Amino acid sequence: MTTEREKMTAGEAYQQFDPELIERREFIRNELVSINHITDNEKRNGRFKDLLAETGEHFFVESDFKFDYGFNIHIGDHFYGNYDMTFLDTCPITIGSHCYFGPNIGLYTPVHPLDPTERNADVEMGKPITIGDSAWLGGRVTILPGVTLGDNVVVGAGSVVTKSFGDNVVIAGNPARVIKEVPKSSK
Amino acid sequence: MTTEREKMTAGEAYQQFDPELIERREFIRNELVSINHITDNEKRNGRFKDLLAETGEHFFVESDFKFDYGFNIHIGDHFYGNYDMTFLDTCPITIGSHCYFGPNIGLYTPVHPLDPTERNADVEMGKPITIGDSAWLGGRVTILPGVTLGDNVVVGAGSVVTKSFGDNVVIAGNPARVIKEVPKSSK
Amino acid sequence: MTTEREKMTAGEAYQQFDPELIERREFIRNELVSINHITDNEKRNGRFKDLLAETGEHFFVESDFKFDYGFNIHIGDHFYGNYDMTFLDTCPITIGSHCYFGPNIGLYTPVHPLDPTERNADVEMGKPITIGDSAWLGGRVTILPGVTLGDNVVVGAGSVVTKSFGDNVVIAGNPARVIKEVPKSSK
Repeated sequence: MTTEREKMTAGEAYQQFDPELIERREFIRNELVSINHITDNEKRNGRFKDLLAETGEHFFVESDFKFDYGFNIHIGDHFYGNYDMTFLDTCPITIGSHCYFGPNIGLYTPVHPLDPTERNADVEMGKPITIGDSAWLGGRVTILPGVTLGDNVVVGAGSVVTKSFGDNVVIAGNPARVIKEVPKSSK
Repeated sequence: MTTEREKMTAGEAYQQFDPELIERREFIRNELVSINHITDNEKRNGRFKDLLAETGEHFFVESDFKFDYGFNIHIGDHFYGNYDMTFLDTCPITIGSHCYFGPNIGLYTPVHPLDPTERNADVEMGKPITIGDSAWLGGRVTILPGVTLGDNVVVGAGSVVTKSFGDNVVIAGNPARVIKEVPKSSK
Repeated sequence: MTTEREKMTAGEAYQQFDPELIERREFIRNELVSINHITDNEKRNGRFKDLLAETGEHFFVESDFKFDYGFNIHIGDHFYGNYDMTFLDTCPITIGSHCYFGPNIGLYTPVHPLDPTERNADVEMGKPITIGDSAWLGGRVTILPGVTLGDNVVVGAGSVVTKSFGDNVVIAGNPARVIKEVPKSSK
């Protein structure tokens, strides 16, 4: 493991003022300001796809989608994301197929040290976020670093997901807890 | 009930790829990008009023107000909405007179099926949101589909309102609960 | 105390339609639309610094930072703020040195009366927000009027901070509660 980008993606402490990372962040900042004003759906989505590591068929994201790098965002087929999603992708964000995301979703992978002395030295790490197939995230859902969600998970609007959950559950609250199972007939 | 727009507004399963609905969404996307950059208050608010089903006197909304259609948003007199409100109005959103909304408010009427197979077939329904007169919603309040709030309701900042409440209550939390009554002298 | 601006800053009931305050809000609205599209970091941050009461060395804020006036925002050295922060600064917002703020942070100082009759007369007050040195606020943190946080405080993503906390604590939830102490070795 040699580059800061590789360390960052692996979740290890990395130097955020690395020239390669700075250059990429500046490129993305410029791209986002430009893309988020494109109202033609095909053009806007095409431009977003160019910046992300992986996307599939039927990719649709509304405006004001923001992220740090794009190269750590992997999304399956049939993705719909509503207004104002923010994906902080210092570590990989992996999203399955057939996922519906409401507006104002925040997926945050970066982690700073709890120790203020270390944190103030600009040490930063991260943990990946993984979301299975057929997820539905309601509006204003926040997902913390290191969370994995299984398949067919529904997350209630306004929830803060602080830990991982398996398949076929509806979760909600802050912190999110299982509030019901996805009905058996529907799995 | 014949059109997809009518089904959608009634809360019934509808086809979101209906040409009339697609056309309206594209029109609104274009309008929002344009209007949200207008810093002249009178011009910006006038343009918003033109897109909404009903508004009254003294309508004032800060920038980055977003919605899906506008034709399902009904707002009474003396409305103030702060930055970055998002109203998903597949079903009617009805707001009384003399309401104050903080920044980052999310009112979400759309509902997807819990069954992933149905959801992945792009079936979508919804439930209306109704807010009485003289409401004050603090910043970053989320209101879920089907919620009705009475008159003189105060919602604490950051609350997630998952069910309906009557008149004269202060609610807060996730999920929001009554934390006090609005003082009798003030009703 | 003679001007509406002075009353407002002191947290007293003030007249928001005061010409001086209206003029400042319009000036800020125009500035924000312009500044938030600047992707050159040095230029963007320089323009933000010009509008704020106090900032220190190494000030960095990502785009879509919004506030009401700017003249009540005081920030120490080494500040980093991520995307989409909203600071409602009718009253002073004072932030120490070496603070890291995640995306979608909301600091709200305005307070309206609970009494709907008073509120509808456009009476508005406020309470200051004070954050010590070396704070880390995770993404989508909401801080309510009147809150003071000590030094070395970490606030979990998605938290709603409704009351004050002292030094060296990690707080999280809605409402936020102490979930652990910052480790002794690190103070």
